[in-house]
Amino acid sequence: MKAYVRRAFYYETDQMGIVHHSNYIRWMEEARLDLMRQAGLDYRTMEQAGIIMPVTSVECRYKISAHYDQPVFITAIPTEYNGVRAAFRYEIRGEDGRLMAEGSSGHCFLDTETRCPLNLKRRLPEYSAQFEKVVVKPEVT
Amino acid sequence: MKAYVRRAFYYETDQMGIVHHSNYIRWMEEARLDLMRQAGLDYRTMEQAGIIMPVTSVECRYKISAHYDQPVFITAIPTEYNGVRAAFRYEIRGEDGRLMAEGSSGHCFLDTETRCPLNLKRRLPEYSAQFEKVVVKPEVT
Amino acid sequence: MKAYVRRAFYYETDQMGIVHHSNYIRWMEEARLDLMRQAGLDYRTMEQAGIIMPVTSVECRYKISAHYDQPVFITAIPTEYNGVRAAFRYEIRGEDGRLMAEGSSGHCFLDTETRCPLNLKRRLPEYSAQFEKVVVKPEVT
Amino acid sequence: MKAYVRRAFYYETDQMGIVHHSNYIRWMEEARLDLMRQAGLDYRTMEQAGIIMPVTSVECRYKISAHYDQPVFITAIPTEYNGVRAAFRYEIRGEDGRLMAEGSSGHCFLDTETRCPLNLKRRLPEYSAQFEKVVVKPEVT
Repeated sequence: MKAYVRRAFYYETDQMGIVHHSNYIRWMEEARLDLMRQAGLDYRTMEQAGIIMPVTSVECRYKISAHYDQPVFITAIPTEYNGVRAAFRYEIRGEDGRLMAEGSSGHCFLDTETRCPLNLKRRLPEYSAQFEKVVVKPEVT
Repeated sequence: MKAYVRRAFYYETDQMGIVHHSNYIRWMEEARLDLMRQAGLDYRTMEQAGIIMPVTSVECRYKISAHYDQPVFITAIPTEYNGVRAAFRYEIRGEDGRLMAEGSSGHCFLDTETRCPLNLKRRLPEYSAQFEKVVVKPEVT
Repeated sequence: MKAYVRRAFYYETDQMGIVHHSNYIRWMEEARLDLMRQAGLDYRTMEQAGIIMPVTSVECRYKISAHYDQPVFITAIPTEYNGVRAAFRYEIRGEDGRLMAEGSSGHCFLDTETRCPLNLKRRLPEYSAQFEKVVVKPEVT
Repeated sequence: MKAYVRRAFYYETDQMGIVHHSNYIRWMEEARLDLMRQAGLDYRTMEQAGIIMPVTSVECRYKISAHYDQPVFITAIPTEYNGVRAAFRYEIRGEDGRLMAEGSSGHCFLDTETRCPLNLKRRLPEYSAQFEKVVVKPEVT
């Protein structure tokens, strides 16, 4: 999978002169949905099937500030998936490859109408099988 | 009706050290929905009746920059309503009463499902009658 | 100049299921700064010279709603420049070329420190000359 | 200290029909800066002294979705402060008192010009002493 690339927008900066920290959380979403599209897991497929994948937790550690117009390379890595829950890890890097921020997010699957949790294995078996395939298990050492 | 008051948030500033101009458009929405609530026109009533009121045009002229933590007083004035279209005018003032920005917005009414235009007079007659009452006609001189 | 292209992000939608109207104002900024970069008018050059170009007015008319993940093509056209003020016009189109929204913005030039208006012709003569070149005068018919 | 209260804005919702998760990170900032103002630690005092307090980490766990126009009560609790670093904990509750989300943030202090870390005890001794006073140490049991 290719890293998701985009520039920092002017309206994403704050009066510290750097990108406001809340925007990294949005960048992580952009990269996650881009990764899913690349992996044959287009999010619209889920929503059209009456399923949403809300965020249950999010976390980010900031190391180097991003500035206006700077290109950022965001890698989203699916680290967990069991039909009921999913998790992703993120790395945000500059053009020079240096780590600017890293984070993670947790997700569940809900029925759009009832807002009840559901098992994607039963509701969307093929999509689910594909999701399982793309998960990157951390190496055991 | 009381003016809608709130402070400028830190994340609303940009690296010019002032509130980013796009946020005034959001403030105008806050003030419009607050005015409608005060006027017995709670927007949720409309959405629960399967109706949305999207923005068809928006416009803002900026005079004095708003800064972090500054209280802003936003007046929303309904200037047109005919069941099919509505329009509002806005004034954004500082604590000292000086005009910081002024704007306007145009709206139509759509069926949430079909996304087709509708006449609020037929679909929500009481709500519509109340809407008519609160419109402030510009004085003829 | 090439049109600026990007997809609508998930977090840019609202509960109407369409992109919130305030984000078009932000897209216009993205397209304006992209156009300026392409035209040899990198905005950072101005800020590094102690000059900011705030927005004095903005306006947008919405015709077709944008949806999550939809590619949008935004053309920014400099329509006025006299050293003291500048103006841009915008067209937002879908992949099929249909006009989704159009707008405009007005700008002035201020000294970053004093926040006083300045004439770019005197402060940044080369940059100013280049700005003059790229302005697209409306045809007289 | 009083909890910080505000309603969820329409533009903060996404097409899931709930407040987008990135906005809780912004709400936490609103509550943190409100708490600091109440506690005699106005953030502008710091910025006027040439100091910024950027976010080094942020984290949020979501339990109950917030909806448009719903009042949310956000408590910010300073949990750590040593002159060089600070940390806050947050609880976001509904009108009924139920916990909707909880989170935390870490911060450092930097010189606005040099962007180098600094010790607030030396740079702003009185402000620093007041900061120490308001920290809520977790109880040892």
